Amino acid sequence: MTSIALIEAAAKRLSGHARRTPLLSSPFLDEIAGRRVFVKAECLQHTGSFKFRGGWNAVSALVEAGPLSGVIAYSSGNHAQGVALAAKMHGIPAVIVMPADAPAIKIANTRALGAEVVTYDRAAEDRDALGARLAAERGLALVKPFDMAEVIAGQGTTGLEIAEQAAEAGVTEAVVLVPCGGGGLTSGIALALQARAPGMVVHPVEPEGFDDVARSQAAGERLRNERLSGSICDAIITPVTGDLTWPLLRDLCGPGLVVTEDEALRAMALAHDRLKIVLEPGGAVALAAALFRPGAGAVIAVASGGNVDRAMMIRALQG
Amino acid sequence: MTSIALIEAAAKRLSGHARRTPLLSSPFLDEIAGRRVFVKAECLQHTGSFKFRGGWNAVSALVEAGPLSGVIAYSSGNHAQGVALAAKMHGIPAVIVMPADAPAIKIANTRALGAEVVTYDRAAEDRDALGARLAAERGLALVKPFDMAEVIAGQGTTGLEIAEQAAEAGVTEAVVLVPCGGGGLTSGIALALQARAPGMVVHPVEPEGFDDVARSQAAGERLRNERLSGSICDAIITPVTGDLTWPLLRDLCGPGLVVTEDEALRAMALAHDRLKIVLEPGGAVALAAALFRPGAGAVIAVASGGNVDRAMMIRALQG
Repeated sequence: MTSIALIEAAAKRLSGHARRTPLLSSPFLDEIAGRRVFVKAECLQHTGSFKFRGGWNAVSALVEAGPLSGVIAYSSGNHAQGVALAAKMHGIPAVIVMPADAPAIKIANTRALGAEVVTYDRAAEDRDALGARLAAERGLALVKPFDMAEVIAGQGTTGLEIAEQAAEAGVTEAVVLVPCGGGGLTSGIALALQARAPGMVVHPVEPEGFDDVARSQAAGERLRNERLSGSICDAIITPVTGDLTWPLLRDLCGPGLVVTEDEALRAMALAHDRLKIVLEPGGAVALAAALFRPGAGAVIAVASGGNVDRAMMIRALQG
Repeated sequence: MTSIALIEAAAKRLSGHARRTPLLSSPFLDEIAGRRVFVKAECLQHTGSFKFRGGWNAVSALVEAGPLSGVIAYSSGNHAQGVALAAKMHGIPAVIVMPADAPAIKIANTRALGAEVVTYDRAAEDRDALGARLAAERGLALVKPFDMAEVIAGQGTTGLEIAEQAAEAGVTEAVVLVPCGGGGLTSGIALALQARAPGMVVHPVEPEGFDDVARSQAAGERLRNERLSGSICDAIITPVTGDLTWPLLRDLCGPGLVVTEDEALRAMALAHDRLKIVLEPGGAVALAAALFRPGAGAVIAVASGGNVDRAMMIRALQG
């Protein structure tokens, strides 16, 4: 079970390896929102997203636990890169299982970070069976994208930094908005802030049409997304929250917010103009909610990732 | 005369007010350059460029020196915004003198930072005479863009941070590349590194066709740019270096490097892809030299500013 003690242990492991990303702000964004806006720029983390934190912590914990032949992960996106770099920095092999039709650039990037990429045919092959076979054959440990205590703890270190950096800016009460897919980042931050900044309330933010968390919170039971593709916010689209993350989202977070794709693109353009950072659509949904949803008091938006291709950024800037 | 003592005093003044910008890196950029590349992301500084450092330090020094009615600056760009925000944060008036044909967005941005913008007709009016009259009438103190000891000292705090952050990454010997216009940032960093990181050598970087500093260094005497417009790197185009900056550039820096506009645009696109930061063309010339000019050992490029309009960023991304 993830706890503040586990998050503190993760922070020790990450020290000197992960970046302490800045908490940015701009008077121009404050004016748009009608309140003080802070942005935790996790797009500046190694590999361009917060996923390096959880990857580093999970791989570190596995290495500490004993001899390890390597790690394996299923991902075509940010989690793949986070685990690949964490394994490379630990000097152990990483196998990343990706669909054969994943964008070539994502496969190339993951390979460039030192991982072995094993592709499979989405129509004909069972990913989990393939992964289980590889893990058994080679003695690899699975690093899950969110439903794993050490992964949640790693993402939670973002919350420790938010508490410290906001306090330095004189802010101890705030609404904290977090892009939410499987819920690893959101629940980790909620746990950290419960302990370190009890005046802050975390709200998950999702794209319209993929709001399983907001609907689950409203219903009091875990619901699934009906669709799993067709969103430009692909980085935060998951079928359903995890066995570990759902109770934390349910018990520690305020109601989920939902933004449109157009609002995410507008937030990307404003982050470009005013903060000088590059966000991917899924990484921009919390900033979109901060800017375009009413609210009072300070708001802190987590900008969770920046792995966007040039065409999508051009689309945002042409808005 | 600017000295390491003045830079240290500036660092004390900036503490808690300026951002300590991150020193970023990416294995993908290392691969392109064939060596370790670090990027000091001053585009993430308040107002989107390093100019806030010098503005804050100069305004602070003026405020400390005695009662002050306000400050005045001539600029249509980054210096205007740096001085405007510094004055606003000190609670004193700022007057910024700008040509009437400056882009509306730059005038609006400077006003939004609390400054009074006074425009003049470039063809019919003498900017310096107008400024002198305003300063005399209202008792305003002039903050020059680079040729002023407290401004150079403020920019030099960037060098103190580079020395510390590079040492944390295990780097004490490096080539440090700095976008160079009037030379305030370059000479300030050179002074700071001479004292704090003597294994590092600073080289100014300029755009092709506007390389007065490289030519001055080669000639051993201060030369002027022949043209003053027509570069997309407008943020770092100045007629000639200053009486204070030129001797420092001459005595403390290695030979200047020159890059093309196309290289600056390619560096902008790579900073977008790999570092998730937004650079303006003039702010990207040092990164361009780091990526596209041969060299050995670690290289640290200062990314001096990110105040680019959307159309120019789209041009870079469409490269």
